[in-house]
Amino acid sequence: MEQNELRQMLRDVADGKCDIESAMLKLKEAPVEDLGFAKIDHHRALRQGMAEVIYGAGKTPEQITKIAEAMKSHGQKTILITRMSEEAAAFMEANSTLKPEYDRISHIGIVGEIPQANGKGTIVVATGGTSDVSVAEEAAKTAECYGNRVVRLYDVGVAGIHRLLAHQDEIMSARCIIAIAGMEGALASVIGGLADCPVIAVPTSVGYGANFGGLSALLSMLNSCASGVSVVNIDNGFGAGYIASMINHQ
Amino acid sequence: MEQNELRQMLRDVADGKCDIESAMLKLKEAPVEDLGFAKIDHHRALRQGMAEVIYGAGKTPEQITKIAEAMKSHGQKTILITRMSEEAAAFMEANSTLKPEYDRISHIGIVGEIPQANGKGTIVVATGGTSDVSVAEEAAKTAECYGNRVVRLYDVGVAGIHRLLAHQDEIMSARCIIAIAGMEGALASVIGGLADCPVIAVPTSVGYGANFGGLSALLSMLNSCASGVSVVNIDNGFGAGYIASMINHQ
Amino acid sequence: MEQNELRQMLRDVADGKCDIESAMLKLKEAPVEDLGFAKIDHHRALRQGMAEVIYGAGKTPEQITKIAEAMKSHGQKTILITRMSEEAAAFMEANSTLKPEYDRISHIGIVGEIPQANGKGTIVVATGGTSDVSVAEEAAKTAECYGNRVVRLYDVGVAGIHRLLAHQDEIMSARCIIAIAGMEGALASVIGGLADCPVIAVPTSVGYGANFGGLSALLSMLNSCASGVSVVNIDNGFGAGYIASMINHQ
Amino acid sequence: MEQNELRQMLRDVADGKCDIESAMLKLKEAPVEDLGFAKIDHHRALRQGMAEVIYGAGKTPEQITKIAEAMKSHGQKTILITRMSEEAAAFMEANSTLKPEYDRISHIGIVGEIPQANGKGTIVVATGGTSDVSVAEEAAKTAECYGNRVVRLYDVGVAGIHRLLAHQDEIMSARCIIAIAGMEGALASVIGGLADCPVIAVPTSVGYGANFGGLSALLSMLNSCASGVSVVNIDNGFGAGYIASMINHQ
Amino acid sequence: MEQNELRQMLRDVADGKCDIESAMLKLKEAPVEDLGFAKIDHHRALRQGMAEVIYGAGKTPEQITKIAEAMKSHGQKTILITRMSEEAAAFMEANSTLKPEYDRISHIGIVGEIPQANGKGTIVVATGGTSDVSVAEEAAKTAECYGNRVVRLYDVGVAGIHRLLAHQDEIMSARCIIAIAGMEGALASVIGGLADCPVIAVPTSVGYGANFGGLSALLSMLNSCASGVSVVNIDNGFGAGYIASMINHQ
Amino acid sequence: MEQNELRQMLRDVADGKCDIESAMLKLKEAPVEDLGFAKIDHHRALRQGMAEVIYGAGKTPEQITKIAEAMKSHGQKTILITRMSEEAAAFMEANSTLKPEYDRISHIGIVGEIPQANGKGTIVVATGGTSDVSVAEEAAKTAECYGNRVVRLYDVGVAGIHRLLAHQDEIMSARCIIAIAGMEGALASVIGGLADCPVIAVPTSVGYGANFGGLSALLSMLNSCASGVSVVNIDNGFGAGYIASMINHQ
Amino acid sequence: MEQNELRQMLRDVADGKCDIESAMLKLKEAPVEDLGFAKIDHHRALRQGMAEVIYGAGKTPEQITKIAEAMKSHGQKTILITRMSEEAAAFMEANSTLKPEYDRISHIGIVGEIPQANGKGTIVVATGGTSDVSVAEEAAKTAECYGNRVVRLYDVGVAGIHRLLAHQDEIMSARCIIAIAGMEGALASVIGGLADCPVIAVPTSVGYGANFGGLSALLSMLNSCASGVSVVNIDNGFGAGYIASMINHQ
Amino acid sequence: MEQNELRQMLRDVADGKCDIESAMLKLKEAPVEDLGFAKIDHHRALRQGMAEVIYGAGKTPEQITKIAEAMKSHGQKTILITRMSEEAAAFMEANSTLKPEYDRISHIGIVGEIPQANGKGTIVVATGGTSDVSVAEEAAKTAECYGNRVVRLYDVGVAGIHRLLAHQDEIMSARCIIAIAGMEGALASVIGGLADCPVIAVPTSVGYGANFGGLSALLSMLNSCASGVSVVNIDNGFGAGYIASMINHQ
Repeated sequence: MEQNELRQMLRDVADGKCDIESAMLKLKEAPVEDLGFAKIDHHRALRQGMAEVIYGAGKTPEQITKIAEAMKSHGQKTILITRMSEEAAAFMEANSTLKPEYDRISHIGIVGEIPQANGKGTIVVATGGTSDVSVAEEAAKTAECYGNRVVRLYDVGVAGIHRLLAHQDEIMSARCIIAIAGMEGALASVIGGLADCPVIAVPTSVGYGANFGGLSALLSMLNSCASGVSVVNIDNGFGAGYIASMINHQ
Repeated sequence: MEQNELRQMLRDVADGKCDIESAMLKLKEAPVEDLGFAKIDHHRALRQGMAEVIYGAGKTPEQITKIAEAMKSHGQKTILITRMSEEAAAFMEANSTLKPEYDRISHIGIVGEIPQANGKGTIVVATGGTSDVSVAEEAAKTAECYGNRVVRLYDVGVAGIHRLLAHQDEIMSARCIIAIAGMEGALASVIGGLADCPVIAVPTSVGYGANFGGLSALLSMLNSCASGVSVVNIDNGFGAGYIASMINHQ
Repeated sequence: MEQNELRQMLRDVADGKCDIESAMLKLKEAPVEDLGFAKIDHHRALRQGMAEVIYGAGKTPEQITKIAEAMKSHGQKTILITRMSEEAAAFMEANSTLKPEYDRISHIGIVGEIPQANGKGTIVVATGGTSDVSVAEEAAKTAECYGNRVVRLYDVGVAGIHRLLAHQDEIMSARCIIAIAGMEGALASVIGGLADCPVIAVPTSVGYGANFGGLSALLSMLNSCASGVSVVNIDNGFGAGYIASMINHQ
Repeated sequence: MEQNELRQMLRDVADGKCDIESAMLKLKEAPVEDLGFAKIDHHRALRQGMAEVIYGAGKTPEQITKIAEAMKSHGQKTILITRMSEEAAAFMEANSTLKPEYDRISHIGIVGEIPQANGKGTIVVATGGTSDVSVAEEAAKTAECYGNRVVRLYDVGVAGIHRLLAHQDEIMSARCIIAIAGMEGALASVIGGLADCPVIAVPTSVGYGANFGGLSALLSMLNSCASGVSVVNIDNGFGAGYIASMINHQ
Repeated sequence: MEQNELRQMLRDVADGKCDIESAMLKLKEAPVEDLGFAKIDHHRALRQGMAEVIYGAGKTPEQITKIAEAMKSHGQKTILITRMSEEAAAFMEANSTLKPEYDRISHIGIVGEIPQANGKGTIVVATGGTSDVSVAEEAAKTAECYGNRVVRLYDVGVAGIHRLLAHQDEIMSARCIIAIAGMEGALASVIGGLADCPVIAVPTSVGYGANFGGLSALLSMLNSCASGVSVVNIDNGFGAGYIASMINHQ
Repeated sequence: MEQNELRQMLRDVADGKCDIESAMLKLKEAPVEDLGFAKIDHHRALRQGMAEVIYGAGKTPEQITKIAEAMKSHGQKTILITRMSEEAAAFMEANSTLKPEYDRISHIGIVGEIPQANGKGTIVVATGGTSDVSVAEEAAKTAECYGNRVVRLYDVGVAGIHRLLAHQDEIMSARCIIAIAGMEGALASVIGGLADCPVIAVPTSVGYGANFGGLSALLSMLNSCASGVSVVNIDNGFGAGYIASMINHQ
Repeated sequence: MEQNELRQMLRDVADGKCDIESAMLKLKEAPVEDLGFAKIDHHRALRQGMAEVIYGAGKTPEQITKIAEAMKSHGQKTILITRMSEEAAAFMEANSTLKPEYDRISHIGIVGEIPQANGKGTIVVATGGTSDVSVAEEAAKTAECYGNRVVRLYDVGVAGIHRLLAHQDEIMSARCIIAIAGMEGALASVIGGLADCPVIAVPTSVGYGANFGGLSALLSMLNSCASGVSVVNIDNGFGAGYIASMINHQ
Repeated sequence: MEQNELRQMLRDVADGKCDIESAMLKLKEAPVEDLGFAKIDHHRALRQGMAEVIYGAGKTPEQITKIAEAMKSHGQKTILITRMSEEAAAFMEANSTLKPEYDRISHIGIVGEIPQANGKGTIVVATGGTSDVSVAEEAAKTAECYGNRVVRLYDVGVAGIHRLLAHQDEIMSARCIIAIAGMEGALASVIGGLADCPVIAVPTSVGYGANFGGLSALLSMLNSCASGVSVVNIDNGFGAGYIASMINHQ
């Protein structure tokens, strides 16, 4: 319940328009729909400005479909489903009136229209290598779903620094940059040194050996000597896209 | 060298105003002053919009003083020195015309005036406990040095959730929140769920045992189930303050 | 052998009712049945008040069935089998007179009746997300098997703190709470701060990246700033249910 | 604010005894005293049944003294200060009317009287070795402060199993056991197999080499093959004593 | 080349019975047969008293068969093949005159006769649980292959200490004990405290969660507070059997 | 752009042969071909003396084929593809005019001719065991592709030191040695102590248990007490072969 | 109580020579003296053949002295005190009739006579470098205290393999070898390949950087490709000396 | 003993010029001087081309002085002492005819003359920051001691990429580059991508928090996406200088 609603309700209690037990109930009540296996927060867009998404990993196709339908029935226009398996996409296609657009590279499913870009500037999504593209597309598509223009700079890793420097214009004019890299993760530091906007670093699990599942890139990015760099979880393209959108809409 | 300067110099070459070897030199030259032990980037404010700071750890009092003087002589108005030891502050006080304001809690020294706050909104700095205040003050003072209004919410850890919920107004109206916590680092997730602006999470090394020098809070924050949370290095109050200022000035 | 039995046996030796070598034997003998691959402790219920369970992981369907039959033939009324594969359940169904009730979500098989709830209060089982439900059901079913009333609060993670606060009544009136969460595992701290009973925290391996197989939630819970929280192994729903039952029966 | 207080306040609003803005204020207000560097939760005893303690590590002697005085002035009878340095104890002795009893082994300071033991049974505190006694005394004194009878069994590590078996009586008759051990931490499993009550395991940082600051004992205890064992943070004697008291008072 | 052979060869050079280049050659030559992918050390039995075994993991069925045939043709009577896949055993059966005895539990193949036990005493192989039996059989069969009497004590983990104490006789009369356990690995410490002979501890990867692939048992055993315990690699039953045989034959 | 090209271009600008915007473009332009998913650096041979290779892991057969074709069309004579799957090799064979030589052991595909050896000396590739041969062949074939003579010494691990000492001649006469070992990785130290040339150590993931995916060999090699040893990533045979070739061509 | 004593006591009960409650008492009684902070196991020599030692770390000078005096008064002839600080040695010297021989390198104190060597062969103690000597002397002196002849081979690390090979005679004729090394810990594998007796490997914390406090040597030794090598904790010279003595006395 | 010496000695045996036992002795003898605590390898320069150095850490001032004197008396002209404390330098100055040049930044002491540079090219030593200079000087001085010209590029970290690009000439013309960096260690990758010579990467322990004592830079460098980069231990400036010299003298 928002501040204004609270104040109004208290006025209603004072005026006798609202009895005490109803007020009790409302004060306890959260705008949450309980599906048993999940509690959907329908007021999140109100409270946080961005509608809830469905994190598909660890959920059955049935659960994903039910949650999406509940969201739809509450009026959510664009439903973003991340980490969605091909099976889940096929299940929803076959068993629901909701028809998701499914992207095999990013494992993202989208129900409804992607809104017009209304962010204030451009979000650059850069990757160190070709293998990071799956995470990059999760970030880029998330940002697009939330109404942002996205510029993709893929395979601009620091071992060939000229590939990156060739794109200094895009970097200098971005409002937020998402730097995605596995292996040694140095991309974030170099971009952080070139850019004048916040850089969201996404370590990826791309690599082998002493990469330890993305740990090397993660530590590298956390220890970045460039100011302006903050980090999200390994492979968390969604999180980076979400934050970038927040920044681009302020 | 900026784009415009590059274009002008090329015109000068075309016009014969600038000879080829001078152009060669300028194209190689970086706007960097070399003190031997350090290379100071005087164009950083131009390029990135925020002047360079001095990271005091691992530098001798003499080195810090020389770097500060070089910055001063290039016209930098406010010089922020982080991780400054009391010895270094005393040395500069005694041996230089620069007289730093030194804060024992945050280990921050400031030479020159703190500018008027010109950020667009408020930055909230929240901590889980009393022991996190040293890191919090590094963040808060950094933000203030870069021209931001800061609201401090200290000791609002999640084990007493009501202490945090009592400040929902400040949280809801912030433009960026810095959530600082050691131990289990849960503060970032709870704030992330309440706020509608980016949350910069700072894990601290506060704790003992299975805290492993801040690792528990770091992992906790990276795995936050709240969207909108990104993370900087353990105890990196400066980094958080810097990013928050970037966001608050866009 | 219990204290009383020991005293009686010594009396029998003194009276000549029991010869020395028999006494020797009894003093060495443990109330353990040896199946070769396993030694079953039939006196455990006597000694510890709660009958032995079968931990199904790493045992063949044949071994599980033989152990269950040995327990049955010693009079155990309810036999709980955890981490039971569907194959093992099918094998026992087909090859034994024992017909287990098998639950696909928790991988628990139960032979015999679930006893009437005789615990003194209520055990709350709460999870941070939908993906933690498998572990939660292992905890809940274990507690029910040992005679406890269980209240389930699923998907009440801290990123939407209102979902949890809406259930403060159940939390305040529980006799023991099992808090189950993956990712950052902050649920335990928040519940620990709200409740006035012991909280058993179960980290789960739900998550990805810097979650490192449940390590982030584990460390988070061990470092909880809330008093009253103790922790069991990652995904150890059984252990939590067992301890909660102990506490609820004192 | 408790449920009953909430209901009464709403009645007062309805009756006009309480105006709206006052109600607004109370609904936001938490029963928390703000000392700037710390927020003291004076209603914790009401809410959780056990008064707040002062965790001394990372706080200055002045801060500890001020918090203790604030608690005293709100009527708290026994104030427990853990991880208190000798300096802090001497400071409080010299600068406050509060005169703490200070114990050099456990680093615990107590202001006020230790209450009569009113727990339902006995809490056993057992250690693997002599070096674990500091942690053990933190646990034992905490339990005594909260009104429990404590039996100490020190230096009963599993490498001399007969030393432990000689105390089976105490183990069998306890209502809760705290098993404290460094090195390999096996004590918890052996006691867990002998006892019929909850065992709280406390790994200690006692040891060297591959002990890694208590990690070996911590992992050992988390992986205990005995049911009924839960674990707290390395060296967290206070936490164990607190939980044991909770269990002993139900 | 042995000391005596060296002395004799030098005498032959002095006597002119051996020319210089032949001596050069012999001094360089190692008693090693080179199969390209492997170099077999046929003098190992001479040098170390125990013939070389074939470690099957990471070798193709063809490679294993060729190495075994080379050993056979050099007169090795018993050929022990560890970590042998069922495929490799079937391949050798089908494609070679060597017919291995293959054991599915321990993944051990044996070509030739198991020799008479000629060790001086008994080797006890004890396990904490049923799931450790695979490693235990690797240890036991290795010891038997090298001529030792083996007593097996399976499923005597410390959570039911009476199961272990019932076998104190075998433990007290052993010449070497192999203690095998996963999870918390406490078995080694308890046996180490009971026995008066060397204990070889084998951590196993049995367990889940904070077991981290055997790390918990490994650290536990390395930190054993019992003297007389040394440790081999996780799941290294062969190594333990080999060392135990060395000790039993001195 | 090379130094000479830059100077020439500036002369052309001065002479009016090149207009300013064209110069602008060239100064920004990198000699990089953009395939969308990858940016190929065709000037690498010019800049670094060794042509770019294709790292096959994480690329689709289509992507590998397209990159190889782009390289071919730019005149690259030998194209080395590492970590190439059998599927990718078959795909290229079937769908392209490029017909790679594919080696199943090293997972290396080669398009074009292997050049004549033109390095100054010999590169020795040594392994500790038979299971390291896959990595060794990646190193050896890489070195051969870049024009080096390679001597292979396989299965000369330190547990049979005489096998290694028998090859002291090859070791003493090499210009660079690649020491490849899993398990304890001691081979690098022993060779480092015998050789008078740089030793590139390659830890492998061969092993089990406390090997932790190659970590034990990696740490061992990094801590080598022999001077002259440097280390590449676990299983990185390509990297070692590349560096050895650099050294052998100076 | 030993088997024979048990049988006799039961006969006495049967004969009425011993009453039941006395028998009860004896059956419960352990041969353990309780000093409050420590429980001394005076029957250890009987049960395990080797008298108990005092591990000095974490004990006060007073505690060490009291334990030593208790041992002395029970007739123990040689009392070994490991990890003894200079302070503790000086305290005992000044405050007790016991006058320890104290060695500053190994931090070992010995009260009483070192017995005649009565082991069956020789124990070799070898170190990789000069810095490992402190741990080596702990091992060597422990072995001497338990009646063993010790041969010291210090600074024979594998980076100069000839230094080690020069001592093959001592290695070949030992009955047990203790191999002590920090850094990469390869010494154990090379000695393991040369020797025909058990090798006890002791990793040391000597080194820096990626040594991680001895972890590199520890993992290296656990992964030794040489059979016959088992490992004790980092820096655990005492444990190695103890086991070597066990082996040398069988 | 070298090959030629061996052949000659055998001829002497054949001619009767050398008796058998003398030959025996020589064949066993290593060119190693035994100081008890250390074994000095005087033939190392012969065998490996570079004289032995003294690693000062963990050695007493007396030991360092004795080793240096033994080297001097065997004719070694330049004696390099790394990790030398100021105390050790002062001790040698006061107590020996050897007068070391001591450098406080690199902790290097040099006895004798630094030789003329006779390497074939230039070695570049580059650091990411000012705090890495101590390690850099260890590398640079080591290289100079072994006869190399060194170019120092300090504080050219990747967060200000222009500082590095300004020195592309030195990088392109080097024969070997030592890239030294703490924090995220990205310098090695960027230099590796620019240079056409081997790059030796040295991670430093400079940093804090998730740097974990240099682990972040170490992993980053091991995972470098640039070919041509190999890595030595954290802070191992000496090792890097030694290898660079090897490469520069081939």
